[in-house]
Amino acid sequence: MNFGIAFFPSKEIQDAANSYRKRYDPRYTLIPPHITLKDSFKIEDGKLDEVITELQRIAMETEPFPIHITKVSSFEPVTNTIYFKVEKTDEIIKLEEKLHSGKFEDTRKHPFVPHVTLAQDLTHVEFTDILGRLNMENHKYEDTFDRFQLLYQLDNGQWTVHETFVLGRE
Amino acid sequence: MNFGIAFFPSKEIQDAANSYRKRYDPRYTLIPPHITLKDSFKIEDGKLDEVITELQRIAMETEPFPIHITKVSSFEPVTNTIYFKVEKTDEIIKLEEKLHSGKFEDTRKHPFVPHVTLAQDLTHVEFTDILGRLNMENHKYEDTFDRFQLLYQLDNGQWTVHETFVLGRE
Repeated sequence: MNFGIAFFPSKEIQDAANSYRKRYDPRYTLIPPHITLKDSFKIEDGKLDEVITELQRIAMETEPFPIHITKVSSFEPVTNTIYFKVEKTDEIIKLEEKLHSGKFEDTRKHPFVPHVTLAQDLTHVEFTDILGRLNMENHKYEDTFDRFQLLYQLDNGQWTVHETFVLGRE
Repeated sequence: MNFGIAFFPSKEIQDAANSYRKRYDPRYTLIPPHITLKDSFKIEDGKLDEVITELQRIAMETEPFPIHITKVSSFEPVTNTIYFKVEKTDEIIKLEEKLHSGKFEDTRKHPFVPHVTLAQDLTHVEFTDILGRLNMENHKYEDTFDRFQLLYQLDNGQWTVHETFVLGRE
């Protein structure tokens, strides 16, 4: 079974992202708009409880922190994914680091770029069009990062939340 | 904002449900397969924390319990929704009752029929076909009801999990 860890930002940010995802993200129907903290990973049979205890520990020792979306960006030339860029703060870097060290294997293939995907798998013309349009709009949002969720993937690719971990709660 | 309360059954049950939902449920992309415990409801501004405290209380005093899917059924002649019927046990009735009494307004319009939707908004021919096919198959599943989730709805109709409430956990 594939697991992942993500944060769902405010409804305002999710609605803004969906207005693009609906047309330009083929994975639009598999999961609501999110910031990925840990990409798809496996949990050995019988080890789920241990992982949950560790996630509770990490959540409890992490206080909620503000996040800022300041602009739209893309992974070009690596991929033509377009996204809301989440400012890299010490708090989010530290949290992502904890989810890839200690009890967790470090399987990262890329540096951590916190983001909310808006569009992916585009043709070159779509890419230029959409990025141009988004750059003329004002996309600045503030939110509080106060929880993360452990999800698992169904056979059709859809993600179901297994559990929520609220930050700083005893 | 619309909120709802639901339980996501095991991956096995969700995968089985999705194999039908994919073709026959127009709401397939809005939420993974689930058992609804409380239909769409509103929470007044500033009252979310109070609702969460109450849900924590209910979860803590409820022990996990087994659930059984024993057959496929439909709401005909009221609607032509086809679903996995979840056996009505004291535990699930009591939990649903708690989510519609005390601090929660009782807004129920129908008796509680715990189920996982497989198909809805069908033509008459589709309805007869699908129900006939499902009735020839073996759909019996066991699962443990050990949590429920508070979800909210985005502008596009998609549901995002706000928080998980694990049963019987201190």
